[in-house]
Amino acid sequence: MADKITEIDLRILKLLSKNARLTYRELAEMLGTTRQRVSRRMDRLERNGVIKKYTVIPDYEALGYVHVILGITVKPNVNLDEVIPALVEDDNVKIVQRALGSHNLVVHIVGPKDMRELERIISEVSRKIPGVDKLDITFITDTVKFEVL
Amino acid sequence: MADKITEIDLRILKLLSKNARLTYRELAEMLGTTRQRVSRRMDRLERNGVIKKYTVIPDYEALGYVHVILGITVKPNVNLDEVIPALVEDDNVKIVQRALGSHNLVVHIVGPKDMRELERIISEVSRKIPGVDKLDITFITDTVKFEVL
Repeated sequence: MADKITEIDLRILKLLSKNARLTYRELAEMLGTTRQRVSRRMDRLERNGVIKKYTVIPDYEALGYVHVILGITVKPNVNLDEVIPALVEDDNVKIVQRALGSHNLVVHIVGPKDMRELERIISEVSRKIPGVDKLDITFITDTVKFEVL
Repeated sequence: MADKITEIDLRILKLLSKNARLTYRELAEMLGTTRQRVSRRMDRLERNGVIKKYTVIPDYEALGYVHVILGITVKPNVNLDEVIPALVEDDNVKIVQRALGSHNLVVHIVGPKDMRELERIISEVSRKIPGVDKLDITFITDTVKFEVL
């Protein structure tokens, strides 16, 4: 993580954030540089963890899924380090983020449209978190904009 | 959107969600099928909007950015269709999602670490939303798990 992020790194990241499937050749042409340089910079960004993942943003609705966000506030005595492993292990839990502010923990669940089954999954996940002070449940109905950088 | 999602579509999506840079050839090998078939199915998933985007998940911290989520509840008389365009246009706003439940609107901001500047951006974005009943501000400090499917 000590490596400096250069101007070219930022430009590569911006392009990949719009289309992660651009080839080294396409990126090199867009940036007026060589494939070798692009490949070397990307390798480095991956190794440093600056690039965590190349992924796809699906339309959950079209796939028959429901996307639920749990915004969780825990009591001050709760140690999140002890809570997080059980959440990470859970296949219904797709995103786990530590946070500061209104919520201490943000958990995304992707589940079936069947509301009874979804309720079962949400309460199963909630039960893994002791000392919950507040739980905000939000059902995403439409993603109007999705950008990264 | 009327096209049926097949078993092979789901398998392609799962693989791409773990690594969106897999080539047609690699996907075909992993799935025991042809490059042509993979390419045809992906074209279709893109055209149908089942695949919204191929993107990169960066470490905002390493890039010197702060990732803030606004969970917004608006008063019942607010028409979100009138609010959303101004949010979508704003370059500081990366994600805009309509929602049901604790929040009606989920807005992600990626801003600078400088807290004064960040405050200015957050209030600028908030002012674009009339009739806010509740605003939950959450600062993401660490993404422990990020999966899509």
